[in-house]
Amino acid sequence: MSKLWSPIVAALKAYVPGEQPRMADLVKLNTNESPYGPSERALEAIRAAADTNLRLYPDPVALGLREAIAARHEVSVGEVFVGNGSDEVLAHTFAALLKHDRPLLFPDISYSFYTTYAGLFGIEAVEVPLDAAFRIDIADYRRPSGAVILPNPNAPTGIGLPLAEIERLVAEHPGQPVVIDEAYIDFGGESAIALVPKYDNLLVVQTFSKSRALAGLRVGFAIGQRPLIEALERVKDSFNSYPLGRAAQAGATAAIEDEAWFEATRGKIIASRAKLTSELEKRGFEVLPSQANFVFARHPGHAGQTLAAKLRERAVIVRHFAKPRIADFLRITIGTDAECAKLVAALDEVL
Amino acid sequence: MSKLWSPIVAALKAYVPGEQPRMADLVKLNTNESPYGPSERALEAIRAAADTNLRLYPDPVALGLREAIAARHEVSVGEVFVGNGSDEVLAHTFAALLKHDRPLLFPDISYSFYTTYAGLFGIEAVEVPLDAAFRIDIADYRRPSGAVILPNPNAPTGIGLPLAEIERLVAEHPGQPVVIDEAYIDFGGESAIALVPKYDNLLVVQTFSKSRALAGLRVGFAIGQRPLIEALERVKDSFNSYPLGRAAQAGATAAIEDEAWFEATRGKIIASRAKLTSELEKRGFEVLPSQANFVFARHPGHAGQTLAAKLRERAVIVRHFAKPRIADFLRITIGTDAECAKLVAALDEVL
Repeated sequence: MSKLWSPIVAALKAYVPGEQPRMADLVKLNTNESPYGPSERALEAIRAAADTNLRLYPDPVALGLREAIAARHEVSVGEVFVGNGSDEVLAHTFAALLKHDRPLLFPDISYSFYTTYAGLFGIEAVEVPLDAAFRIDIADYRRPSGAVILPNPNAPTGIGLPLAEIERLVAEHPGQPVVIDEAYIDFGGESAIALVPKYDNLLVVQTFSKSRALAGLRVGFAIGQRPLIEALERVKDSFNSYPLGRAAQAGATAAIEDEAWFEATRGKIIASRAKLTSELEKRGFEVLPSQANFVFARHPGHAGQTLAAKLRERAVIVRHFAKPRIADFLRITIGTDAECAKLVAALDEVL
Repeated sequence: MSKLWSPIVAALKAYVPGEQPRMADLVKLNTNESPYGPSERALEAIRAAADTNLRLYPDPVALGLREAIAARHEVSVGEVFVGNGSDEVLAHTFAALLKHDRPLLFPDISYSFYTTYAGLFGIEAVEVPLDAAFRIDIADYRRPSGAVILPNPNAPTGIGLPLAEIERLVAEHPGQPVVIDEAYIDFGGESAIALVPKYDNLLVVQTFSKSRALAGLRVGFAIGQRPLIEALERVKDSFNSYPLGRAAQAGATAAIEDEAWFEATRGKIIASRAKLTSELEKRGFEVLPSQANFVFARHPGHAGQTLAAKLRERAVIVRHFAKPRIADFLRITIGTDAECAKLVAALDEVL
C-alpha cells in the first residue's frame, strides 16, 4: 500500500473476469459470449459511424439509443438509462441506489462483482444462501434490508425465477430498491420490465453483451421509473458525461432494431442448450436447469478443477469457481453445436 | 430527493458539458473538438473491428493500446493506464489518488468537472485563485494539502506553464499525488511525461479527444510510476472490467501510431490559432496567450453573455461560463480557417 493512495484503495478486492486467451483454435466456453456474430445491421452501423464525425463528442444522453430501447421494451425514453456495459450500469446503481443504513441483500452464489461493488462504495452487504437445490428462495429475503439485487436467471447457476416470484420480492420490499440483473433473460426467462409501471422500487438491468452478441462493444442499460433513473443520471453526470461513443450508440441502436436476428439467434442457443444438457446428462453429469446461455454442471466422479484443467489441455476452456458449494461445478457457455460437440468429445476422453 | 436514493445522490452537482446541438450548417466552436477528422488509419481500424469478433469481450487490460501509448511516450507498458475518455481516467484518479486527510488543491478557474468529482467522492477541495493575469502561480500551492490537480495548459484560459514550473510543483509536494491534466498539451505545451521517471508522485493524464480528433470514440490515458497506476487499476477492476470496447482499442492504437497525421493536424490548428488571435485583437479583444486548441477572449465593450447569444443567432456557437471573473470571456475553439473566418464575420456584424 502506497501512502500516495486514497485510503479506500488498499482494501479493494477486484472482480476477476474470465480470461481472454490468445490461443488459436480454442473452444472458448468460459465467458458466456454468443457463439454467433452480431447482427449485420449492427456491424454496418458501426462501420458507418467510423467517419470524420468521430472528431465530435457523442450525444451525452444517447437519445437515439434510448428511444430504440424504449420502443423495444414499451417504456418511455425517460425510463431508460444506458452505460458502458451493464457492469458500468451496475456500478452506478450500487453508488446511486444500493447504499442505505440497512444492508444490501444478494445471493451467496451469484455474480461475484456484487461483492466488489459493495466494497468499492462502502456498502454493507449480506449474502443470502441459495437453497439446497441452488435456487433463490424469495422467502429468505424477508429480513432487515436497505435494498436487494439479484440476477434472474441467476449466474452461475442459470436457474431462473418466474415473474410471479420476482413480483413477490419487489412487493415485499416497498420503499427499498430491488434490482433485477437480467443479463441472461433472453434465453428463456421472463423479464421484470413488465412490472416497472406498477412498482416504483424496481430497476431492471440488461446488456447487449449476451443475447445481442456485442460483448466487444460495451453497452448495457437499465429500465425503471423516473426517480430511480434520475439517481443514475446524477451519478453518471458526476462521473463521465460521455460514457458511450458514437460507434457504440449507433451499433447498439441498430442491434436492438434487428428483431429477426435476435429471435433466430437466441432460438439456436436455446436449442443447443437442450442438446448439450442431454449429452452431459447421458455422461453422468448433474446439470442445473438453465434459462441462460450457459449450463452449470458437475460430475459425481470428477472434481471440477481437475475436469476444467483436463479440458483446457484439449483446448476447451470452461469457467471454474474455486468457491465453497460450487467447487465441483463447471460453468459451460453454450457454443455452436460444433463447439458443443468438441466439448463433449473432449469430455469423453477425460471421463 | 427520493428515499430510494443512496444518501450521496441528492448532493451531487453534475458537470454540464458543452451542448451538442443538432442544427445544420452550424459553426460549432464550443467543445474544443478538432475541426479535422481523425486519422484515416484510425477509421480503417475501427471499421475492421466491426466484425464477428465483436461477440467477444475486449481485452480487459487493453494491452495492445497500452503498448502503443508506451512506445509513443517512451515509458513501460506498466506505466500506462487507459480508460473510457480522460473523464473516466480522471474519475478513477480522484477515487484512487486524490482523497486524503488534507485537502485537494486545484485552480479556481479550471476544468469545472474537478469540483464535481470531489463532490462525488467526498473529497475536501480548496480552489486556489489564478493570479490577476489568469495565470497559475505555483507559489500559491505552497499550503497544507493532500494532493494537487491542475490542467496544463489550463482550461478555459489556454495558458500553459513551462515544464520547469511543473517540475517545481511536483518537487514541492513530495509524498502527495500531483496530477497534470494534459488534455490540450499537444497544441504547444511541454508534456510532464518526461518527468515521470524522476518523480513517484506525478501522474499525467491525456486524451484522444482533442489532438487525435477522436472525441466520439472515448479514449483517455494516464502515465505514472507503477504504484500510481496500480491504484488506478485496482479501482478500475472494482468498477468495470472492460472499459474500452474492441473498436475503441483498435482505433486508438492506429491513431497514436499515425505520427504524420498528428503532426500535420496540430500544426494547422496552431497556425489557425495565431491567425484567429490576430483577427480578434484587431477588433479590440483581449486574448489570453493560448497553448490549447481554443482561445479565451473578452471585449472591453461587450458583455460575454450578450456576445455569445448574438453569435448564436448567426449559427456560431462558442462557450460562455456564467462565473465570477470570467463572465465576460468567450472560449472559442479553433476551427478550420473557413470556420474562423465565419466567426470573425459574425463578430463584425455584432460589434
